Amino acid sequence: MKVSEIGEFGLIARITSVINKSSAKNSTARRNLLLGIGDDAAAWKTTNSIQLATTDILVEDIHFYLGYTNWRDLGWKALAVNISDIASMGGIPEYALVSLSLPGFIEVADILSLYKGMLQIANEHGIAICGGNISSADKIIINITLTGKASGKKLLKRSTAKPGDLISVTGYPGLSDGGLRVLKTKLQVEPEDRETLIGAHLRPTPKVREGITLVTQGAKTAIDTSDGLLADLAHVCEASRVSAILYESSLPIHPLLKKYFGAESIQMALSGGEDYELLFTATPELMDKVKGNLGCLTTVIGEIIAGSPGVVSVCSTTGKTIRLDHKGWDHYKPPS
Amino acid sequence: MKVSEIGEFGLIARITSVINKSSAKNSTARRNLLLGIGDDAAAWKTTNSIQLATTDILVEDIHFYLGYTNWRDLGWKALAVNISDIASMGGIPEYALVSLSLPGFIEVADILSLYKGMLQIANEHGIAICGGNISSADKIIINITLTGKASGKKLLKRSTAKPGDLISVTGYPGLSDGGLRVLKTKLQVEPEDRETLIGAHLRPTPKVREGITLVTQGAKTAIDTSDGLLADLAHVCEASRVSAILYESSLPIHPLLKKYFGAESIQMALSGGEDYELLFTATPELMDKVKGNLGCLTTVIGEIIAGSPGVVSVCSTTGKTIRLDHKGWDHYKPPS
Repeated sequence: MKVSEIGEFGLIARITSVINKSSAKNSTARRNLLLGIGDDAAAWKTTNSIQLATTDILVEDIHFYLGYTNWRDLGWKALAVNISDIASMGGIPEYALVSLSLPGFIEVADILSLYKGMLQIANEHGIAICGGNISSADKIIINITLTGKASGKKLLKRSTAKPGDLISVTGYPGLSDGGLRVLKTKLQVEPEDRETLIGAHLRPTPKVREGITLVTQGAKTAIDTSDGLLADLAHVCEASRVSAILYESSLPIHPLLKKYFGAESIQMALSGGEDYELLFTATPELMDKVKGNLGCLTTVIGEIIAGSPGVVSVCSTTGKTIRLDHKGWDHYKPPS
Repeated sequence: MKVSEIGEFGLIARITSVINKSSAKNSTARRNLLLGIGDDAAAWKTTNSIQLATTDILVEDIHFYLGYTNWRDLGWKALAVNISDIASMGGIPEYALVSLSLPGFIEVADILSLYKGMLQIANEHGIAICGGNISSADKIIINITLTGKASGKKLLKRSTAKPGDLISVTGYPGLSDGGLRVLKTKLQVEPEDRETLIGAHLRPTPKVREGITLVTQGAKTAIDTSDGLLADLAHVCEASRVSAILYESSLPIHPLLKKYFGAESIQMALSGGEDYELLFTATPELMDKVKGNLGCLTTVIGEIIAGSPGVVSVCSTTGKTIRLDHKGWDHYKPPS
């Protein structure tokens, strides 16, 4: 059955039913929700706190390709990238609004799968999907806005890195890029390796718990790695008016990146996007304290230094320092 | 200068500069804003209250045509339609996040005009534009999410209409449709008439103050007229599990609709969309009290009756009652 056969309101009714059926009922966000889908705006109760909000748009054939992803994974990822933005502030995600633009020939079952993917990760984080809208379009456009709140009175920001801070990253940068290359090039990889690589690209795990731990223990500076390690570090350095140096020899390179991409894996770890890991800075003393408390692989990869705002240099394994001016993924100027 | 020449980050820098320069500084929302554009999420302080959030996507050649609107008016309208959703809850709009997808050949000056239009209406309502994102796309896509808060402890909803309630509408339904027809058909109209008609379509005025007055004085039920009078009333009747009857003879028909569209003006008032007026119900006693306090044209046009959920009938000037099953504007099933 196609979307055009049941129309906008038929589709909304089915989506609402899936949300009501599959939403975890016991989260704080759900308990405070006063009005979900079905009125002009969603409404929820809030107390004295710091509210957070982020928004991300995914456009078919620009941000995703239906040839590479199934609908459920697409739903997961569309919400995951927003959760990651809240995580990088040290916040707790709460309410999601989903704007969907779709051609009429899309299958209703596919849209319900999309929502099931969103609901799966929403339930893991206690998020209530409480609103949105549907319209027609030539291509699929998914825009999610996610609100949240600070876990206490502080936030992790981009603008607070100081010379002398160490720089750490969670997980394995570049792993998502590895998955994308497997999807794009039909590279021959063993089945379980394929699952790890593609999984990193299609179903990233936002680091909410880790963000809360960081801000609770006194860290001030973080960003999530969506544009790539170098690019995201450059964003932090620009906002903080500092420079940074990364040590190539310290980069955590996933064994599968080495196995399938060899020497190229270094470049993938530095520039590959969409990992949705946390990149953060802290004084050496604080870094020593928090690193072990995050409960996930965390690697010190460099340090913040005084210098031109936004400049990131990489010290290679041969000791040669390369100053990079790459400012990050730009939709209108993709890196060559 | 084109967007592709300065890239995503060049564009964001220019947009941020326009927002910083042109935002009214003295609104409550601006004072409570902790982090605007430039971090992973926006952040603001909130107190014990009911939060509201709504989202709307505008897609080029589906929701708007650059041949009909200039960029400044487009910015105004993109935010206005969201403000109207908050108004119809009796809420106060606060924070806006703007997702923009654009082809690289768009002129930077046009995008800055778009933001100037948004900022103009944002400033009128004390709204802070505090975040968003930019990406490339084949067509222009504008998705705005607007948050707000209840003005007190109550909201206007769709689900609270009761048999015996009178139904009123603010302003002149169909006027926006008149403007759209002038734009579409190149109908010959006198210059000042043209301004009134086109203005209603391109620069609608959301009824925030009126919504707050309604909820403060005890009204419970409202919707904004975006899909058309009949369709929006059907939404209310469906949510409230009631029917409604409208009196054709009571409909406020704008003199210009009569002048240029004659007998067709009735149909335009009943079905024309995008007026962004308030359609609300109240007991006869309450209606009598609130009607005079809204400070704008408000007309009683019908009443809520017991009956099948969602059914709206129109009693014509000849006394004939027509039962309508039209459920409203549907993106996949436009009315014939």
